[in-house]
Amino acid sequence: MRMKNPVKRLLATLTQGVYVVGVGQGGLRDAFTASAVMQVSIRPPMLALAVNPANASFPLLVESGVFAVTALRHDQCAIADFFGTHSARDENKLAAVPWHAAPSGAPVLDEGVSFFDCRVVAQHPAGDHVVFLAEMTGGDFLQGHARPLRYDEVGNMDGSDELLPWHLGGQGDGSEEGR
Amino acid sequence: MRMKNPVKRLLATLTQGVYVVGVGQGGLRDAFTASAVMQVSIRPPMLALAVNPANASFPLLVESGVFAVTALRHDQCAIADFFGTHSARDENKLAAVPWHAAPSGAPVLDEGVSFFDCRVVAQHPAGDHVVFLAEMTGGDFLQGHARPLRYDEVGNMDGSDELLPWHLGGQGDGSEEGR
Repeated sequence: MRMKNPVKRLLATLTQGVYVVGVGQGGLRDAFTASAVMQVSIRPPMLALAVNPANASFPLLVESGVFAVTALRHDQCAIADFFGTHSARDENKLAAVPWHAAPSGAPVLDEGVSFFDCRVVAQHPAGDHVVFLAEMTGGDFLQGHARPLRYDEVGNMDGSDELLPWHLGGQGDGSEEGR
Repeated sequence: MRMKNPVKRLLATLTQGVYVVGVGQGGLRDAFTASAVMQVSIRPPMLALAVNPANASFPLLVESGVFAVTALRHDQCAIADFFGTHSARDENKLAAVPWHAAPSGAPVLDEGVSFFDCRVVAQHPAGDHVVFLAEMTGGDFLQGHARPLRYDEVGNMDGSDELLPWHLGGQGDGSEEGR
């Protein structure tokens, strides 16, 4: 992908996936695209998720204390874009795609590689985001044979090419276009 | 890679990289392999790193409050294995590879895709690991044109195939071998 910002190009060498995070239970549900998801504990299995508190889904995530992560397939760039850019709470994004409720009640997309049902155990500020630490209470394969989508394949979806600083101590111009 | 544990196979659908994390300053330095590294904040740029507190490098990381992440190339599986399995503190692992000190003093491998120099701002318990939140104070490309190594390419390096529970609520047998 084309990135002008050298700090963005450097950060793109961190290997991250692309996920739709479903939040809410009962009548009020929402979902948004995230790339900051990883496993942080083995026993018990726990994930970390970083979320911008300005995200329209943030209050629902904090109030419900649960979320479900759908790992997107390599061919679901359009889904990543849709859930990444349509962020107004009053728009029912989930009406546009088939989904079902995980055991926690949080929404999971029917299509994807896999899903992880999670219960928040802690939240901590981290710069302009909040990091949620969550126990994995369930999960399963969806289309588990498919290759997951990588963050470096989706371009400048989150606008960070413009938001990131352009220089850091020791930060050079770097290679042409990364990988 | 071959994984017997269905929960491990499911977690392998999360997209993570493979890194050598260098810690320490001055005379006492060490390094270890990690897969739990991701960007969590844009302004300022911040990374999260999950570390097992039983890791021999853990006290050095806590005391110095700095670390440097080297993102490994796709052809550096042997390096990942070396820094993942040789964990005795009294063994000078860094003598085996060319490295240099980042501006923080933490060691960076000369060979890799890129590096990130980091200053810890918080640490939080997360199950059997501790999550460090750190500001990225510097970094640069090493061999920035190379493809980064993915965690699903390195096999059962961390032994989590044996450590993870084999069943979770809603956890099915899953697909044959993942991707």
